[in-house]
Amino acid sequence: MVLINENYNKLEETYLFTRIAKKRAAYAEAHPEAEIISMGIGDVTLPLCPAVITAMQQAVQEMADAATFRGYGPEQGYTFLKDAIREYDYRAYGIELADDEIFVSDGSKSDTGNIGDIFSVANVVAIPDPVYPVYIDTNTMAGREIKLLPANEANGFCPQPPEWHADIVYLCSPNNPTGSVLSRAALEEWVAYARREGALILFDAAYKAFITDPDVPHSIYEIPGAMECAIEFSSFSKTAGFTGTRCAFTVVPKVLKGRDSEGREFSLNAMWNRRHITKFNGVPYIVQKGAAAVYTDEGRQQIAEALDYYRANARLIKQTFDELGFTSFGGDNSPYIWLKAPNNMTSWEFFDLMLEELNIIGTPGVGFGNQGEGYFRLTAFGSHENTAIAMQRMREYFSTK
Amino acid sequence: MVLINENYNKLEETYLFTRIAKKRAAYAEAHPEAEIISMGIGDVTLPLCPAVITAMQQAVQEMADAATFRGYGPEQGYTFLKDAIREYDYRAYGIELADDEIFVSDGSKSDTGNIGDIFSVANVVAIPDPVYPVYIDTNTMAGREIKLLPANEANGFCPQPPEWHADIVYLCSPNNPTGSVLSRAALEEWVAYARREGALILFDAAYKAFITDPDVPHSIYEIPGAMECAIEFSSFSKTAGFTGTRCAFTVVPKVLKGRDSEGREFSLNAMWNRRHITKFNGVPYIVQKGAAAVYTDEGRQQIAEALDYYRANARLIKQTFDELGFTSFGGDNSPYIWLKAPNNMTSWEFFDLMLEELNIIGTPGVGFGNQGEGYFRLTAFGSHENTAIAMQRMREYFSTK
Repeated sequence: MVLINENYNKLEETYLFTRIAKKRAAYAEAHPEAEIISMGIGDVTLPLCPAVITAMQQAVQEMADAATFRGYGPEQGYTFLKDAIREYDYRAYGIELADDEIFVSDGSKSDTGNIGDIFSVANVVAIPDPVYPVYIDTNTMAGREIKLLPANEANGFCPQPPEWHADIVYLCSPNNPTGSVLSRAALEEWVAYARREGALILFDAAYKAFITDPDVPHSIYEIPGAMECAIEFSSFSKTAGFTGTRCAFTVVPKVLKGRDSEGREFSLNAMWNRRHITKFNGVPYIVQKGAAAVYTDEGRQQIAEALDYYRANARLIKQTFDELGFTSFGGDNSPYIWLKAPNNMTSWEFFDLMLEELNIIGTPGVGFGNQGEGYFRLTAFGSHENTAIAMQRMREYFSTK
Repeated sequence: MVLINENYNKLEETYLFTRIAKKRAAYAEAHPEAEIISMGIGDVTLPLCPAVITAMQQAVQEMADAATFRGYGPEQGYTFLKDAIREYDYRAYGIELADDEIFVSDGSKSDTGNIGDIFSVANVVAIPDPVYPVYIDTNTMAGREIKLLPANEANGFCPQPPEWHADIVYLCSPNNPTGSVLSRAALEEWVAYARREGALILFDAAYKAFITDPDVPHSIYEIPGAMECAIEFSSFSKTAGFTGTRCAFTVVPKVLKGRDSEGREFSLNAMWNRRHITKFNGVPYIVQKGAAAVYTDEGRQQIAEALDYYRANARLIKQTFDELGFTSFGGDNSPYIWLKAPNNMTSWEFFDLMLEELNIIGTPGVGFGNQGEGYFRLTAFGSHENTAIAMQRMREYFSTK
């Protein structure tokens, strides 16, 4: 009988979102009249913008005609998309990238997991707590040693460079789940740590489109020296509502190096390229045309409106919490608000209260790690109407408590 | 400095298709008047069929409206697509699968590589020679021991169960690159081997749509006992022209088991499910709607016409080779024809002759493995016109030799 990868037995049994879904389904069945408002899953609700829709319709038409039909494309992505990324996501912030430093993929979830393929399992990985579960799970599957970087109220939910050595560090900013952002100064400290320790930063910038604070960089490569110590992951999911359309990109600078056990150096860009062209066959042409449309004048205008729509929800949520005297984080550079549960409730106690008393679904912070105990994540991705109703329910319930 | 995965250094340096592209580009530059006909890369040339186009246009429209917009879908794929797969790809052949035994993905290239994640690196893997390079490369990246199963003229390019033990066996039928198919009897022998040895068969059925011989099964699960020893990979790439649209599915029966080093048994379906939901976020909604349209009455009719178009090319190629007295394989249940190079030429000698004398690009068999030396792969995916011109050039050149 085939031998399994035994690391899978070390994974957490129960899924956070599966457990939430079960509790929700049970409540809905017992209370069919309840109007449950979902602020839990980090999924967008606005449709794709018109510029993207038009581009994809044209692309579908091209696929109907042999003269314009596209079969296999370059696995790393079409140049028409990579050129736009280089221009608007990097050159606009003073960063010059080569075409072959960008790798288009179907998602940062895939990339932040698959990047591990090119690294030895002997590397020690530093991962924040609380955190997006994929970083922990994929390194557990690989069998790497994980050391946690606590993010908590004391450090404003911004993990600090540790005293100890790590070979690989995951950072996510703007952060999922806490909504906190690493300032320019904080990122400079992290780059300094990485250069000092010879560590590689895996920087998840999936939420960068929500940045409003001018002191928050839009790419880790705005920090001098970061090209030599960081890989950056970006996604169209939250920027342009592509959660069900699937497009992302990873930047691996050509100066970035790794070593073998004898100290010989190797290009991580060449290794990621090899992984990418061997285990992946590219993002659909239609989807890449849609993603490229995000960078046109109309596209940029339209997604800015969508982002402002969600930001308005975030402001309302944050404002409501401030008025209620709650402690909360995020919401200003992020679609997530990280609430300290009132009255010292645990995350799940607060989840149950919110579901049963207010018919609102959020995500218990402890599901993202031990440092999340006592916290609760709400998202700004719903409609204005539902967000307003949810906040009104909270005002009415908690003002009297 | 981060430690790399040193297995990457064991990979072959030069890419088969990169080398071909370079030679082609050099020739084209030196002979700009040459009308080069490409029969090398296994890429389709007919556009997506009308039923698929219509379905995708409707799906794009749905994504434009908040009421019908789709965000994150189930990572394993939408039930509307899995239901069609169960009905037309399995029930039609007497095979009953559960919904959760099917995993929709972006490609068999991804799946045949990523499946390795759930297995120990200690497994010995049997891989045919010649073969689609991904099986070799992905197992080399993982660090597994690979033992080759020779496919050659003596066995009609159908690898036979070996005398020795393997934990995992890759089989591809109809075969890339040789176009050979494993008959029902041959598959029964392989299933018997797997059951006897406790081996797991990874069965790549990407080309099953080209089967015409009624004695060739359309799924390995037509063989009794195969559910307990095989995972099957299928793809829309060649069936429906989705090489640039990206959709596939993998079946992992729930009875399939693996073990740990202590002999405890684990469900491979549960493990693949865990890998899939942790490292992947689903195929685009638009693409899944297109794939589902392949199974409608119109879709099935239209893809049958496209497949017949390519089959006509394959017949012409095979017929031409027969008339010229060449030895060739494939072409009757496959879009590939595997030609023994005349006059004992090596694969690359024949490649150069075909490019320089006839302006035809094919793929040197040695690029797929040592057993491919002296052979040459041609594809039936071109236009009728180009295929006819190419065959005429071959008749004129080789009839006089």
